[in-house]
Amino acid sequence: MKTSVIGATGYGGVELLRLLAHHPELEVASIHSFSQTGEPISNQYPHLNSIVTNTLEEIDADHIANTSELVFLATPPGVSKELTPGLLRKGLKVIDLSGDFRMKNPDEYEQWYKRPAAGREDLAKAVYGLSEWKRDSIYGADLIANPGCYATATLLAAAPLMKEQLIEENSLIIDAKSGVSGAGKSPNAMTHFPEIHDNLRIYKVNEHQHVPEIEQMLTEWNENTKPITFSTHLIPITRGIMVTMYGQAKREMTREQLKQIYEESYADASFVRIRQSGYPSPKEVCGSNYCDIAVTYDERTGRITVVSVIDNLMKGAAGQAVQNANIVLGLNERTGLDIVPLYP
Amino acid sequence: MKTSVIGATGYGGVELLRLLAHHPELEVASIHSFSQTGEPISNQYPHLNSIVTNTLEEIDADHIANTSELVFLATPPGVSKELTPGLLRKGLKVIDLSGDFRMKNPDEYEQWYKRPAAGREDLAKAVYGLSEWKRDSIYGADLIANPGCYATATLLAAAPLMKEQLIEENSLIIDAKSGVSGAGKSPNAMTHFPEIHDNLRIYKVNEHQHVPEIEQMLTEWNENTKPITFSTHLIPITRGIMVTMYGQAKREMTREQLKQIYEESYADASFVRIRQSGYPSPKEVCGSNYCDIAVTYDERTGRITVVSVIDNLMKGAAGQAVQNANIVLGLNERTGLDIVPLYP
Amino acid sequence: MKTSVIGATGYGGVELLRLLAHHPELEVASIHSFSQTGEPISNQYPHLNSIVTNTLEEIDADHIANTSELVFLATPPGVSKELTPGLLRKGLKVIDLSGDFRMKNPDEYEQWYKRPAAGREDLAKAVYGLSEWKRDSIYGADLIANPGCYATATLLAAAPLMKEQLIEENSLIIDAKSGVSGAGKSPNAMTHFPEIHDNLRIYKVNEHQHVPEIEQMLTEWNENTKPITFSTHLIPITRGIMVTMYGQAKREMTREQLKQIYEESYADASFVRIRQSGYPSPKEVCGSNYCDIAVTYDERTGRITVVSVIDNLMKGAAGQAVQNANIVLGLNERTGLDIVPLYP
Amino acid sequence: MKTSVIGATGYGGVELLRLLAHHPELEVASIHSFSQTGEPISNQYPHLNSIVTNTLEEIDADHIANTSELVFLATPPGVSKELTPGLLRKGLKVIDLSGDFRMKNPDEYEQWYKRPAAGREDLAKAVYGLSEWKRDSIYGADLIANPGCYATATLLAAAPLMKEQLIEENSLIIDAKSGVSGAGKSPNAMTHFPEIHDNLRIYKVNEHQHVPEIEQMLTEWNENTKPITFSTHLIPITRGIMVTMYGQAKREMTREQLKQIYEESYADASFVRIRQSGYPSPKEVCGSNYCDIAVTYDERTGRITVVSVIDNLMKGAAGQAVQNANIVLGLNERTGLDIVPLYP
Repeated sequence: MKTSVIGATGYGGVELLRLLAHHPELEVASIHSFSQTGEPISNQYPHLNSIVTNTLEEIDADHIANTSELVFLATPPGVSKELTPGLLRKGLKVIDLSGDFRMKNPDEYEQWYKRPAAGREDLAKAVYGLSEWKRDSIYGADLIANPGCYATATLLAAAPLMKEQLIEENSLIIDAKSGVSGAGKSPNAMTHFPEIHDNLRIYKVNEHQHVPEIEQMLTEWNENTKPITFSTHLIPITRGIMVTMYGQAKREMTREQLKQIYEESYADASFVRIRQSGYPSPKEVCGSNYCDIAVTYDERTGRITVVSVIDNLMKGAAGQAVQNANIVLGLNERTGLDIVPLYP
Repeated sequence: MKTSVIGATGYGGVELLRLLAHHPELEVASIHSFSQTGEPISNQYPHLNSIVTNTLEEIDADHIANTSELVFLATPPGVSKELTPGLLRKGLKVIDLSGDFRMKNPDEYEQWYKRPAAGREDLAKAVYGLSEWKRDSIYGADLIANPGCYATATLLAAAPLMKEQLIEENSLIIDAKSGVSGAGKSPNAMTHFPEIHDNLRIYKVNEHQHVPEIEQMLTEWNENTKPITFSTHLIPITRGIMVTMYGQAKREMTREQLKQIYEESYADASFVRIRQSGYPSPKEVCGSNYCDIAVTYDERTGRITVVSVIDNLMKGAAGQAVQNANIVLGLNERTGLDIVPLYP
Repeated sequence: MKTSVIGATGYGGVELLRLLAHHPELEVASIHSFSQTGEPISNQYPHLNSIVTNTLEEIDADHIANTSELVFLATPPGVSKELTPGLLRKGLKVIDLSGDFRMKNPDEYEQWYKRPAAGREDLAKAVYGLSEWKRDSIYGADLIANPGCYATATLLAAAPLMKEQLIEENSLIIDAKSGVSGAGKSPNAMTHFPEIHDNLRIYKVNEHQHVPEIEQMLTEWNENTKPITFSTHLIPITRGIMVTMYGQAKREMTREQLKQIYEESYADASFVRIRQSGYPSPKEVCGSNYCDIAVTYDERTGRITVVSVIDNLMKGAAGQAVQNANIVLGLNERTGLDIVPLYP
Repeated sequence: MKTSVIGATGYGGVELLRLLAHHPELEVASIHSFSQTGEPISNQYPHLNSIVTNTLEEIDADHIANTSELVFLATPPGVSKELTPGLLRKGLKVIDLSGDFRMKNPDEYEQWYKRPAAGREDLAKAVYGLSEWKRDSIYGADLIANPGCYATATLLAAAPLMKEQLIEENSLIIDAKSGVSGAGKSPNAMTHFPEIHDNLRIYKVNEHQHVPEIEQMLTEWNENTKPITFSTHLIPITRGIMVTMYGQAKREMTREQLKQIYEESYADASFVRIRQSGYPSPKEVCGSNYCDIAVTYDERTGRITVVSVIDNLMKGAAGQAVQNANIVLGLNERTGLDIVPLYP
């Protein structure tokens, strides 16, 4: 099946190209960007020399509809909102890696993103693509809103807590740490090497735009969900997110019992690995689509701590996008994603 | 005044040598270690060439008593417990950077450190050296238990919360991040470059040995203190600790009000800087004795977030040790510590 | 075809497991180490959870001969010298990643490695596995001495210079930079994070044990080869080698002419990519078997500069080992190695 | 004595502020920049909170002449060329950290910098401020052209080679490695964290603008100097330069003899430290004004290798600028520079 990648020159886009280069069922028919059109992408990304020979093309919905059946949108905020309706009308399947279609409520989008939301009708068509928990809705859908990187690591860690009502609904605190590739490809003062190397920064405290999509999903799982505390830290690594999550347990339990609940929750989720002992680190999933999770219960405080790690460009972006494409098309969800983490 | 440094070859010891090299009132009479005695320390640390010409000597209490009036102990756990009583008997002032004398209750020490505690009498002599809050007790004391690095960053951030009863006493959650120099000079699997570079790790979840000294001090400030949740993360930076602290506010407030309480609490603490806007990062205090703190209040959740950063080898170890020596001796506490952070 | 990996717990070994997990023709029958036998390798390397389920076994030649037809030895110096003769007698093909069989002259080995060499007869059986230049000898061979990581990056860069007699034979200067994974998995003072992070070190100046294998190969290409100057630097990255090579040109030329000679030299070498413009960086080959090369000629000095980069664990170790196994067995040399570099 | 810093918001400027904050003879009367005037510099650099309280002012030569007697210019290329003549006319001493006044020959400047040179008369007034070798000319001078960072590390390493005619004059090859702070404070694609972290890059091969000032100084020392080969690499560290230098010895020697020549050459240079054994690394001079040098001679090739390290923002910029100011004013050259390197 022919696919197109729009926004191919960002880190999410170039990671899609890595995955699609060896996907047995999806073939890249065309790649698109707003700038440097007419040039081979390998000019900008020489690691693709002799591997990806495509030339960047302008974004033309008619042309894309002629060449492809499925489109990945790895575009900045506000772009897919404009492009998607036209692509859907031409019968294309759309996997959108941006935040434009994640919120059902446009007001919440506008409050957190500080920009106009997509139309209510378009939003209604979108399926939130948290693969492990939305498989049935994703299958056959036309428009997938691929979750944010922080949201993916958070929701996979929180799902059993909230669905199984393990914690007080008003007690969820999420301390999240992300690598710098999550900030995208454009240099700025915060991502300038001398500023973040040998350093770390906390930012957007209680203001991160992934908060509403997390709360929307938590509420779907547990209607008593209360606002969460969510802090994001920029860490001097390139790829990887670690979420450390705290919640007040509703009842006493053992680490073993807690682990078992997680294992059962993810029994048929081959990309979610529950740690038998110890705690995961982001390097252990680097370059792969895995989400590794560890849990513990502290008797002194009655609190549960959950730790989850993902590669933000993979399970947090391009990997989950391909997984969702696989599910949409009825393929095995691991197709093209059977990748061993790169360690060390 | 003549001083000796015992344990001079560790990172805490060598940082003491940096500070003492330019301290106008303290002069290094001798340096001591368990190994490599007879060699100039600059063999092992060539950055000290032409600056520190001392040769490492064996640890001999009689000899030290003859040459020095004040001793810094930067030794592994369990060592100062053995050395200190003899040094005190000879009339020396002792600043102990290890954890041996921090806990008043030997049982708690043994529970968290998994090793025998110092004697109750010796423990009774020690003053917990959290400089900003213990100045009166430190002045003239014979034995200072210098706080742990995590404990320093945590307690300076938590003091106003607990003393002013701003938060529910059972709601304190501390998510702490430390650079790798905090793990000391001995290589191990966790500090091997390929394992922690471009990576981070959570470790000792709810089990870190700095928990009891934190709770001991919090309880002194507020007798309703309940057990804390305390998570430690190893971050791929050399120096620096960041503590992100969460607590449920007892009443509504504004960020401005909260900031003002912190400013008043630290009005006469020149090493504690309250941020007017934004959040601090560890590089902003690198090589200095500052602790930078920012606070915020979230209306959605009613929670307070406090962020504090220190250089773990400075305010978290050697810097606070020199500050305490200054206070013990009645000097201005900034003597020898008037250092501009090294940025970038 | 069944294979065994001896020395599976080192970085070279675990990288072999990554490659073999998805190699369509080679299957891992058993993995072996000197320690932790009886345990699943995923205990030590949790990134392999649910992917590699093998348990570490003792090293028993008879047993290995029963289960496998080809063996990879990723063992410390001096080990394969002992194991290989027995394995060969049992009819196994051996790919040795250590330096034990690289030198034809045992005296040179002993001079540079400071340890006893393998026997002359055994050495005579070994083929030096620089894949691109030794394909004919490798095909069908029983024992492959896989080149060193520095040697691979150096020789691929130097081959056209020496074979085409482009430079004065006594003018070759090689300034090599390597990531820390090249130092192996055992922690030591030089690889301790606080020592090498935000730092770099030059080491083994003119004394590196890869010098003799480089000179042996250069001499095979050009009998007028003179001793080389070879400096190695440890750089704070995990994977990757960059070689910067200088030579005095025998005649004037343009960058374009020089590039063309390199392109012709590597016309049928799909893993060697000659840069059309700019210079390569190690991240552009990360996780892959590529060697990227750029060349330039300086009119002011009449000198040629060649820059080459590889992933030291891939083209510099496990990747080339699998490439050699493919050639030995008559497979397409890219089998199982068609990997897109992980960027960024 | 009152001084002003123009270009205070760059990394060189802010490092000057660190040094001047504790300089006993120089006081900062005013700081200037092209942007953010009217704001305290601590808004932009919070590490200066409570330490440097100056507000950024516009650049007004008259005003500066009224408040200061000596000016540091830490401005981008082409700026000091415009400002300096006016400042000199008003009787100010000028220390220029940019490249504008380093070349005596304006044609060479224009060839390498690709921009118009300063006037010949102004160039004639400038003294090249390589402190250790130009003390007599610097003393009392009005205009100091502070050397480039690469040039400083290179020239201090090369001086004995060329002055003592130890090497063939056409054989000098310099392989230089620099931290990213050398690229300045403005973010760009090359200094974006995900691009250079866990990576390194070679750039400006044979084209770096420090080449002509190096050759100018070498020629002053040895009129037979020939063009040099000079390669620059960007390394993922913040501060620090390492130069690895190769030359063909004119005669056989021992490492010991070579070391002795260097020790004699730098007998009265307290900031240049010759290593008795081993090789220096940049972290060993971090934050200080030292240049550490090691030398070796290789019998196999007859080549000398010299390794030098500096902190590019200190001995390579602000440190040497203060050292030069001290010499200009007849102070001890270590005044305000007696700083222990920050290690680790």
